[in-house]
Amino acid sequence: MAAFLDFVRLTFLVLLLAVPWGAIAADEDPLQDVCVADIDAQVKVNGFVCKASISASDFVSHILSKPGNINNKLGSSVTAAGAANFPGLNTQGLSFARIDYAPGGVVPPHNHPRASEVLFVVYGTLRVGFVTSSPDFTLFTNTLYPGDLTVFPRGLVHFIINVGDTQALSLSGLDSQNPGASLLPNVLFASNPTIGDDVLDKAFNLPESDIEKIKAAVKG
Amino acid sequence: MAAFLDFVRLTFLVLLLAVPWGAIAADEDPLQDVCVADIDAQVKVNGFVCKASISASDFVSHILSKPGNINNKLGSSVTAAGAANFPGLNTQGLSFARIDYAPGGVVPPHNHPRASEVLFVVYGTLRVGFVTSSPDFTLFTNTLYPGDLTVFPRGLVHFIINVGDTQALSLSGLDSQNPGASLLPNVLFASNPTIGDDVLDKAFNLPESDIEKIKAAVKG
Amino acid sequence: MAAFLDFVRLTFLVLLLAVPWGAIAADEDPLQDVCVADIDAQVKVNGFVCKASISASDFVSHILSKPGNINNKLGSSVTAAGAANFPGLNTQGLSFARIDYAPGGVVPPHNHPRASEVLFVVYGTLRVGFVTSSPDFTLFTNTLYPGDLTVFPRGLVHFIINVGDTQALSLSGLDSQNPGASLLPNVLFASNPTIGDDVLDKAFNLPESDIEKIKAAVKG
Amino acid sequence: MAAFLDFVRLTFLVLLLAVPWGAIAADEDPLQDVCVADIDAQVKVNGFVCKASISASDFVSHILSKPGNINNKLGSSVTAAGAANFPGLNTQGLSFARIDYAPGGVVPPHNHPRASEVLFVVYGTLRVGFVTSSPDFTLFTNTLYPGDLTVFPRGLVHFIINVGDTQALSLSGLDSQNPGASLLPNVLFASNPTIGDDVLDKAFNLPESDIEKIKAAVKG
Amino acid sequence: MAAFLDFVRLTFLVLLLAVPWGAIAADEDPLQDVCVADIDAQVKVNGFVCKASISASDFVSHILSKPGNINNKLGSSVTAAGAANFPGLNTQGLSFARIDYAPGGVVPPHNHPRASEVLFVVYGTLRVGFVTSSPDFTLFTNTLYPGDLTVFPRGLVHFIINVGDTQALSLSGLDSQNPGASLLPNVLFASNPTIGDDVLDKAFNLPESDIEKIKAAVKG
Amino acid sequence: MAAFLDFVRLTFLVLLLAVPWGAIAADEDPLQDVCVADIDAQVKVNGFVCKASISASDFVSHILSKPGNINNKLGSSVTAAGAANFPGLNTQGLSFARIDYAPGGVVPPHNHPRASEVLFVVYGTLRVGFVTSSPDFTLFTNTLYPGDLTVFPRGLVHFIINVGDTQALSLSGLDSQNPGASLLPNVLFASNPTIGDDVLDKAFNLPESDIEKIKAAVKG
Repeated sequence: MAAFLDFVRLTFLVLLLAVPWGAIAADEDPLQDVCVADIDAQVKVNGFVCKASISASDFVSHILSKPGNINNKLGSSVTAAGAANFPGLNTQGLSFARIDYAPGGVVPPHNHPRASEVLFVVYGTLRVGFVTSSPDFTLFTNTLYPGDLTVFPRGLVHFIINVGDTQALSLSGLDSQNPGASLLPNVLFASNPTIGDDVLDKAFNLPESDIEKIKAAVKG
Repeated sequence: MAAFLDFVRLTFLVLLLAVPWGAIAADEDPLQDVCVADIDAQVKVNGFVCKASISASDFVSHILSKPGNINNKLGSSVTAAGAANFPGLNTQGLSFARIDYAPGGVVPPHNHPRASEVLFVVYGTLRVGFVTSSPDFTLFTNTLYPGDLTVFPRGLVHFIINVGDTQALSLSGLDSQNPGASLLPNVLFASNPTIGDDVLDKAFNLPESDIEKIKAAVKG
Repeated sequence: MAAFLDFVRLTFLVLLLAVPWGAIAADEDPLQDVCVADIDAQVKVNGFVCKASISASDFVSHILSKPGNINNKLGSSVTAAGAANFPGLNTQGLSFARIDYAPGGVVPPHNHPRASEVLFVVYGTLRVGFVTSSPDFTLFTNTLYPGDLTVFPRGLVHFIINVGDTQALSLSGLDSQNPGASLLPNVLFASNPTIGDDVLDKAFNLPESDIEKIKAAVKG
Repeated sequence: MAAFLDFVRLTFLVLLLAVPWGAIAADEDPLQDVCVADIDAQVKVNGFVCKASISASDFVSHILSKPGNINNKLGSSVTAAGAANFPGLNTQGLSFARIDYAPGGVVPPHNHPRASEVLFVVYGTLRVGFVTSSPDFTLFTNTLYPGDLTVFPRGLVHFIINVGDTQALSLSGLDSQNPGASLLPNVLFASNPTIGDDVLDKAFNLPESDIEKIKAAVKG
Repeated sequence: MAAFLDFVRLTFLVLLLAVPWGAIAADEDPLQDVCVADIDAQVKVNGFVCKASISASDFVSHILSKPGNINNKLGSSVTAAGAANFPGLNTQGLSFARIDYAPGGVVPPHNHPRASEVLFVVYGTLRVGFVTSSPDFTLFTNTLYPGDLTVFPRGLVHFIINVGDTQALSLSGLDSQNPGASLLPNVLFASNPTIGDDVLDKAFNLPESDIEKIKAAVKG
Repeated sequence: MAAFLDFVRLTFLVLLLAVPWGAIAADEDPLQDVCVADIDAQVKVNGFVCKASISASDFVSHILSKPGNINNKLGSSVTAAGAANFPGLNTQGLSFARIDYAPGGVVPPHNHPRASEVLFVVYGTLRVGFVTSSPDFTLFTNTLYPGDLTVFPRGLVHFIINVGDTQALSLSGLDSQNPGASLLPNVLFASNPTIGDDVLDKAFNLPESDIEKIKAAVKG
């Protein structure tokens, strides 16, 4: 099962490493035409400080030009462009992501703490869903075909599965330069360190042995 | 196990029924001194339309004056005051909540899609934690004593457990008039309808039988 | 030349008719999970009032599923999904658009009054540029290939041209549910009614006869 | 009367010294999971720059764990936790405060320039009030008992008095990491330096001798 | 002294009657090109609902074209244009005001609960000042001559006095469509009803007889 | 024609050189009472970092006290005060500008990428207009007399012409500390470098020779 961990790391640790998930949210407004992120600056602020010298190439990114590696247990790969890896997005209030899917591939339930998301299907057939908050927990689910668009409301938990027989590709816009992604299986059962069994036992109404089993599965 | 569902409903469905979780977030700014929510108005907008006639009593709420019922499996009860049940909060950008805890009581991992939260311990000993987003999934955890204050950053997953031998009480401010609460065990395993096993199997790296077991446990 | 007007109308009047250009900007934050736009409601507010009854289909749009008609003088077609034609976007702070290009096709210089934009090239080769504001008027220009991403900063004038030999397709996210698009040739020379020659003569340092010639050309 | 000044200083100068009054307002949104304030950094920005290295303890504060000293002429003590003394609040858009009251104790009329406030009564009986802006100057006043909640709208002048026979305690959430507090007796009559008598004479329709008397009283 | 009340009412009750003090603040962003306020609509929202039918005249106001009546005890007159009396300002996030001054005229200390202000001197000589919040209460004061510009920071208390021998005129921009103005002598001593003497006695460290004297003076 | 360039430079390059056009927009909120811009600081952020030491003079500006030079081809001169040349405006969310006009003088069509604008006529007779976005391109135009006020909605293209026989003066408030101004003749035909003829030919439906002629005229 260690392979599973590797895949998750391949997909999320490696790809998103320096990437604050180029999402889009209710970011503050820009106070000048451009403020290209100086990623390596010693001074860290809300967002990034501006580079002293800029050129046209600061406003182009090749990050999304190659498909992600979908040869993993999830059968999916999220590649995101935010202000941290596409510095021209700094202060502009949005980000962009591509998701590649193997047949049956899944993007696990997650939420973006700082963004709404619109998702467009380039090719393939995707079933998507989001769940409203307490007390209704209503699941809204749709099947999307090429050219279809859907929206995941600000901060709500959502997921995607490729229900077609072929690979699929989707593209997303998010309204924050750094939407963040709380991938829930990992957040709940594979954080560093993990959440205590006392909490999870009660939360999921399950004995410790079952919780440990889930932790092991998610960690792969 | 049906009792568990009852408790969850007692805690979250009943208490929060008409309550959008009086949280606090990056809400828009008020455009007049006061705009008391007209909850029953036919016209629904972002937030609420303003009541035509107001009085001093619109600015007081007794919602938090009684402890919630903690005689349930979770051993906790969240009572929240937001614009939907405390109309004077409409357009003001914040809400407030009390949480009562039995010894060992737990508030399951959840996130507020539209708010940050500050939590103050009135009495009791609480262990709290929040998990950062991808790719680090770092768990920051602290033990809080009476008078202590903690913060749950915007949109991140967090939980609370009463680790003392006595009952506990905490009070929270949130920066949205309707922060929302995505209680994750329910969102993931007990939504209406539930998320398909095909998605959850891959997401948690578990066979369908285990997923069904978790669903049954969470539903009680 | 009347044909030119027809094309512009085909592209912008017809396609965007009820569409406030599903862009994305510094929109206010949502105050509830969802607020699907009730487009036909008598009451008009900043954005849209919320529909009383919603279903999953409110969160899907097929607007972008078909290529726009590029058989016009510009050789391009913008199709946008915003809150006015994709009601699920209401209060979510973003929108999405597709642009189809014939070889040599151009999206004329324009600005979005309420949004920044990220643009992704699906196929084709595009030259894009934006111009900074007074007093520098610096043109930043880049040539984009499939998979490339660029950003047009909030409110700045930008343009796109298909410099390849084949058709092209791009997709854009914008951080407003209604970014708006001020297509500058039309705004300057073909508004209803048109801007007076006295203003345009001085603004462009050209005699009235030349201004009239430009007006006629833009109107087609 | 010098004692009065001491008390005011005890209450407001000492307690709030480095404290931007943990209020809550329409703060900008966070652009990353956390940005713990580096209070001592040489670079000062809107809010605070982020510390390079953080730990769990950055998200806990003991500032509110002890009652303030109410042995002063006002008979009250405000203790506030904002981003300046609880660095974990930086970029999170809210703050928190406790107020301790002797019997008859008063929090003088004041406003928060950058926040709304919700106030919860832990114990005691408080009369609270706020005044709307021009031209109505309507006073809305309520008497609050333990467990009651009230709201002071964004930026409006409000006050609190303990009308019970015992000590009282209230807790407040505010929607800014630094709401600020303009304590009006001090702002109007004891600023550094004081506002000129020519202004105050006309503003209050009082002769200079009366204005000087008020200044002396407020300064203690 | 009843005359004083008349003047205050002339200046603030009459002039500002339906006027939410055309100030400017951190208002939400517009979600369409224009949304002219329908002042008389039955539905009240944050700001105003939009008129169904608009024309060019909705974007012009003559409110500021005549000097206010300065023949009163204050020797000043504030005339403000906000969304309530200049409907074209609705959703645009700003307002504008003119102030006319007799020699020696004063605008009493006040704050705008929802706006910052920039003030420009057209003619005359004005001394202006603002006071920072707790614990410093620093008074920053300047003398302004024709053509000078000053700024009153968001929500802080400020005042203006005509220190020249002639009449004066200033113009202000504020960043809210309805900044509000809490005129402090009135808010503190002449609200409806007035704040209790128990509160004011302690707040100002003055006996009840003195408080009553101030109330009488401010009421005129 | 080189003189024309000189005038444009006199008016816009020189006057606005370090000036981000004191406009007004949906700027972020201040997080402290004041944060005077440290214009020369090495660290550049969204807006400006705060000066360590401030005095009253930081809150006064003489920038607008002298009429601009209107002896140029446009017959107008815009002088703007924003955070870059009036550091006290930093974080306050607004700016201010004066415009001087010769008889017949014109402010060419332009938009502010980050602000709405209110304009007040001090003396003279001005015709103003703004054009809505796609697909309507409606021109709203008004003639303004001394004391009249108008509003240019967020981000929309607008222009001004002095239609009286005498010089004129207007004053504007804008809701951003740095609204920016995209002067459209310059942006479209005289940027550095200029936009390619291939783009402009199609955009304006004109042959290259005509485009070159316009470029030459605008460059002067």
